[in-house]
Amino acid sequence: MAKIAIVGAGMMGSALAFPARENGNEVALVGTPLDREIIDECRRSNTHPKFAKHFPGGVPPFPEGVRFFQFEELDAALEGADFVIGGVSSFGVDWFGEEVLPRLPAALPVLSVTKGLLDTPEGGLLSYPAVWEDRLAKKGIAREICAIGGPCTSYELVAHDQTEVAFCGKNMDTLRMLKAAMATDYYHISLSSDVTGIESAVALKNGYALGIALTIGLNQKAFGADSPLHFNSQAAVFGQAVKEMARLLQLQGAGTLENLCVGAGDLYVTVYGGRTRLVGILLGRGLSIEEAKAELKGVTLESLVVAERVARAVKTLAAAGRLDAGDFPLLMHIDEILTGGKPVAIPWESFTF
Amino acid sequence: MAKIAIVGAGMMGSALAFPARENGNEVALVGTPLDREIIDECRRSNTHPKFAKHFPGGVPPFPEGVRFFQFEELDAALEGADFVIGGVSSFGVDWFGEEVLPRLPAALPVLSVTKGLLDTPEGGLLSYPAVWEDRLAKKGIAREICAIGGPCTSYELVAHDQTEVAFCGKNMDTLRMLKAAMATDYYHISLSSDVTGIESAVALKNGYALGIALTIGLNQKAFGADSPLHFNSQAAVFGQAVKEMARLLQLQGAGTLENLCVGAGDLYVTVYGGRTRLVGILLGRGLSIEEAKAELKGVTLESLVVAERVARAVKTLAAAGRLDAGDFPLLMHIDEILTGGKPVAIPWESFTF
Repeated sequence: MAKIAIVGAGMMGSALAFPARENGNEVALVGTPLDREIIDECRRSNTHPKFAKHFPGGVPPFPEGVRFFQFEELDAALEGADFVIGGVSSFGVDWFGEEVLPRLPAALPVLSVTKGLLDTPEGGLLSYPAVWEDRLAKKGIAREICAIGGPCTSYELVAHDQTEVAFCGKNMDTLRMLKAAMATDYYHISLSSDVTGIESAVALKNGYALGIALTIGLNQKAFGADSPLHFNSQAAVFGQAVKEMARLLQLQGAGTLENLCVGAGDLYVTVYGGRTRLVGILLGRGLSIEEAKAELKGVTLESLVVAERVARAVKTLAAAGRLDAGDFPLLMHIDEILTGGKPVAIPWESFTF
Repeated sequence: MAKIAIVGAGMMGSALAFPARENGNEVALVGTPLDREIIDECRRSNTHPKFAKHFPGGVPPFPEGVRFFQFEELDAALEGADFVIGGVSSFGVDWFGEEVLPRLPAALPVLSVTKGLLDTPEGGLLSYPAVWEDRLAKKGIAREICAIGGPCTSYELVAHDQTEVAFCGKNMDTLRMLKAAMATDYYHISLSSDVTGIESAVALKNGYALGIALTIGLNQKAFGADSPLHFNSQAAVFGQAVKEMARLLQLQGAGTLENLCVGAGDLYVTVYGGRTRLVGILLGRGLSIEEAKAELKGVTLESLVVAERVARAVKTLAAAGRLDAGDFPLLMHIDEILTGGKPVAIPWESFTF
């Protein structure tokens, strides 16, 4: 039995409380300053308010015994913890790096579920664990950060659906401890020492999921908004997406089959996931990116931010002659749409070999 | 402009008449002896009866000028042909090899759309072009057969959906001629000299598509037949499927990224395709393979036949010590279900690395 503190009470962080607590661990779920009302509601009803729309028959309560903390109570939540799960979204990366990580003992293992990449001026792509470790090192703190990648929709984890993810980190003993604490008969965990590979695989898929959703919107434009789904064009973009993701992983020095398959699975799940899909469909129907974003009522999609960063890195490397942007026609077109305001015109013939 | 004879008036062969004829080629669609009524109906209405259920608003007619022939009229259809498209299903492989191929001039290019693999007693997996070429060679006929692979549902091609396929063959000049004749602004064609690779990629996906569909049935059993689709478990099996397909392609000496991506796209489309999906869902809900087959009213699924062959080849090679069947836990479980009558119990933990 371990003692686990989860920091960040959004959907993903909170969903992880289910396998964590069901395994008999002590679990403390700590809200960020933005999660104040969520924590209040969790304390009141033992259910998470954001899962409501996915469970019309009633939200499953947290397993008995999960304890809820406001951010001011972080120290109490951390008392005796064996490890911390970082459950913030990619918009919380800076906050987590400034306000949480420096407060944790350097030897306390941290497992982050935040997905994303940061691009550098030279066209590099850094995982969040690498970014955090680097920032901490500048403060004189040497710490290793593990991460979770793979196809996992939070509310399906709450529903106890069979789920396969990968934990990555430099130290295999730490990963084994984390797996022993978290693995259940529905939450299956691969272990990898390739942090860059796993984290890249699950971040790269963002723009590509949008690309597949574009074809759904294109078909709705052609056949009507209520027409049945068509799959030839989705599959064509899916195949091209896997190809470009493999090339990007190779560029990251991480072109293994394991990484690619984690990424392909994550791409598959993201095509069906919420707002990235919605934006893609709206764009495919003919809306501009500004009009599509307006439909989201000001919510910024982290997946689109990541897609733009990956495209910017590719363009930087292409400008430096270090790769051929023609090897990434799908990503380049998605970038034109997202950052250039171009209309959707998928370059189908450029996908052929 | 070319003159094209399509032999086999099933859905796929007939769908290819659309890009072929719209490109300005002369197109003769020739039924097999089983297609007699289809050809009669095509002559009567210029529409294909089997597309009806996919176009509730009315089946798109063939492009003007497609000519229809019964099998006895094959010679007339072949007169002056620049190439022949073989449009039979995998159950027509022997018939096509015996009754059609020997009647064609050896220099007349043949492009086959039949997907599948044949296993050998030694655990080899042969593409149909290889099987036909070998059988013809025994009759003293030297001929090369090209083939089409990739994600293409026939009725979506008829709907002019964007579609990406690969033509493969030994002679790149022949492939370029075939592409020039067939490529349209919605039918995009890659060219590959790796016949084994493309044909294996698009055949291997059969059992795996069934595997993904199993999870849909499992979730229906858990949450009700009308419950919304869940994707974590689909994505988990999808990622594992891509991994095992990559290993099988490597075994075929065809482990290129291009081949894998054609296969991944084809897997994606097949998950949504008709009867393979249906059988997987029924099995996942708890029916036995015999009960699931009974629901198909005696129709034998070529995809399941191919899946059994691939599994048999893997078991043969494993028995000979040439591979570790443990690298293919998903395929081995699907085979247990299909040929061993075992209930569905997906070995989730064996997918972890």
